[in-house]
Amino acid sequence: MNAVPMSLRAGIRPEVERMPESGIVEVANYGRGRDGLIPLWIGEGHRPTPAFIAEAASRALAAGETFYTWQRGIPELREAIARYTGRLFGRAFDPERFYVTVGGMHALQMAMRIVSGPGDEVIVPTPAWPNFEAAVGVNGARAVALPMIPGPDGWVLDLGRLEAAITPRTRALVINSPSNPTGWTASRDDLVRILHLARRHGLWIVADEIYQRFVWDPGLGAETGRTPSFHDVMEEDERILFLQTFSKNWAMTGWRIGWLEAPPELGPVIENLVQYTTSGVPAFLQRAAVVALEEGEGLVEEHIALARHNRQIVCEGLRATNVVELPSPPGAFYAFFGVDGVSDTRRLALDLIDHANVGLAPGTAFGAGGAAYLRLCFLRDTAVLEEAIGRLAAALPRLASRRAA
Amino acid sequence: MNAVPMSLRAGIRPEVERMPESGIVEVANYGRGRDGLIPLWIGEGHRPTPAFIAEAASRALAAGETFYTWQRGIPELREAIARYTGRLFGRAFDPERFYVTVGGMHALQMAMRIVSGPGDEVIVPTPAWPNFEAAVGVNGARAVALPMIPGPDGWVLDLGRLEAAITPRTRALVINSPSNPTGWTASRDDLVRILHLARRHGLWIVADEIYQRFVWDPGLGAETGRTPSFHDVMEEDERILFLQTFSKNWAMTGWRIGWLEAPPELGPVIENLVQYTTSGVPAFLQRAAVVALEEGEGLVEEHIALARHNRQIVCEGLRATNVVELPSPPGAFYAFFGVDGVSDTRRLALDLIDHANVGLAPGTAFGAGGAAYLRLCFLRDTAVLEEAIGRLAAALPRLASRRAA
Repeated sequence: MNAVPMSLRAGIRPEVERMPESGIVEVANYGRGRDGLIPLWIGEGHRPTPAFIAEAASRALAAGETFYTWQRGIPELREAIARYTGRLFGRAFDPERFYVTVGGMHALQMAMRIVSGPGDEVIVPTPAWPNFEAAVGVNGARAVALPMIPGPDGWVLDLGRLEAAITPRTRALVINSPSNPTGWTASRDDLVRILHLARRHGLWIVADEIYQRFVWDPGLGAETGRTPSFHDVMEEDERILFLQTFSKNWAMTGWRIGWLEAPPELGPVIENLVQYTTSGVPAFLQRAAVVALEEGEGLVEEHIALARHNRQIVCEGLRATNVVELPSPPGAFYAFFGVDGVSDTRRLALDLIDHANVGLAPGTAFGAGGAAYLRLCFLRDTAVLEEAIGRLAAALPRLASRRAA
Repeated sequence: MNAVPMSLRAGIRPEVERMPESGIVEVANYGRGRDGLIPLWIGEGHRPTPAFIAEAASRALAAGETFYTWQRGIPELREAIARYTGRLFGRAFDPERFYVTVGGMHALQMAMRIVSGPGDEVIVPTPAWPNFEAAVGVNGARAVALPMIPGPDGWVLDLGRLEAAITPRTRALVINSPSNPTGWTASRDDLVRILHLARRHGLWIVADEIYQRFVWDPGLGAETGRTPSFHDVMEEDERILFLQTFSKNWAMTGWRIGWLEAPPELGPVIENLVQYTTSGVPAFLQRAAVVALEEGEGLVEEHIALARHNRQIVCEGLRATNVVELPSPPGAFYAFFGVDGVSDTRRLALDLIDHANVGLAPGTAFGAGGAAYLRLCFLRDTAVLEEAIGRLAAALPRLASRRAA
């Protein structure tokens, strides 16, 4: 797939050479810079980072906080993360559980390095954020896709099939709830059953709960303001690695800052992994992250309210085209929808750039079971979303019928 | 070595669990926060990043450049790196050769992932920056230490022994010139011979030339202002991966920004690796890096002049203790010296924090052949260095004789 000439290609590690190109990056690169394009392909809001956060970084820069820093993160940020997590779950957390990372991706990279390598398998329910499978594969381990089941009421994770997918080589389960891209959200009962299953088989859980504040289903936490979490059902020092990020809640996608939560006993291992992968996160960025956690609650609530409002507009608008299949997602801020007669959404996503000037992520990017869907991020300005829905409503029926023909 | 309890330890990948703790981080953590301590353990200057660079990041932040960005780096920075490299080597470079990374470490991580994995060997001349060996080991490959030979005129890399260390499993050579910690600097003739050797055996070269502007030996580029480089002797599209960083030249250690230089044909592979390891470098940091390259030449020259001045003071001051063995390093900004009768410099480095309040890096951190040495970074304020040398001169003879006794 990659245009690497033989002489160089022959010298590259096979697990690196066969890494999939991100189907999202491919489409984004295709559309980048087009005049008037509405980009809804990436999980990213439209607002730049607010000044009260950005200025904290600038102040730290001006104060000269430009030296090497703690590999685990500055103590002030680890403490702020512990307090934030404590507020969310109503109990105290040890700051030693939290390790500052270069975004959620770096947290994922380290988690996968801890739990999997050559000869190992990691089960990933799909459709899924493609980086899960890639982060497993680049270590020489095998990601085992477990396709979730689409239904009229949304996606279902069949726990019987999950258990059946476990082999002696299985080392970990990736549980992403709410899910990007499907919006599937685990109930507390799901989490208990998954945890028991993991314990029974001695597996790690890699828990991506980064969308936990974006929940719309009353049965899944819409009133409490957060979804059920493994934090609700786990013991201390359980084999669970949590991925988190500042990207979405605090409009900091481009900052590349997040955290890994792990049992404190893994501290020396994680400190080493940070040292030997990135050597830490700039202290001046961490200062801004502290401010985000301590003063950013209003910002998070604005994002949640915006996403809730937009979810209805997007779902209704897309369904009104009569060529779209889309159960309302219970969590997260994506519409993951099928288009009548279309099975190759990679081509459709490129066509929609040319014909609607709207950028969507092709479901082909999200692994097994995703190829018939498109992902639209609705954490955007409402007026822009309405414009995008209008353009899609004009283009989709044409493209849908053209492909069905 | 790590205090991970059995139940969790049993679940960790062996190549991750056996990662060495950085001997430098251990000592730095031991001494961090001590009143009046002079930290010379890390390869880092004393000056914070100058305002003309830092303010470019703050301006970009204020302008809202806080979104996801190009995985290979913003085009403006890749072009600026190409121009900078062009000025250094007197010819044009294709911006497509350059990939922006989270510091030199991320560049190293990606280089090692490209060239090595389970079953492979990578030859690392030692003493060496410990992260080379760790970055190899964490991928499940084996770093083969090739001890360099200390002599009265400095360290020597025996190319015959280098070739003898090559086995059918060898995939790459790490060539760090000027070397951290020894200061060893390859001549042009050395580079030609190493390159021929690599070609003959089909090996990659991972070239760390980050100290190339810090050269003191007239025979090795002190007049031209840079050391010999593989750029001087290679063909286009050679199997060479260059690591670079903004850390040292531009006083940006804490920014975690650097670059990987590779044949453009590897572009899709490297873009994927960035995506699946860190997902890029903040655009607002990259704006500052552009300014560093375009307006920072005076700053680099100040650093070089300071290091040149300090090198003499440090070498003479340490030799005057009469318990130190230290040939003047031909390149880089480290004094890597032995102390009479001391073989365990890890213990000595901890003792020097307690007894001299000076932080040095123990040679034990730098692999085979390093255990009898201490590393002192002399890219520091001259008066502070003089104070440190005074304290060391008071403490070292005592500690040297105590251990010899």
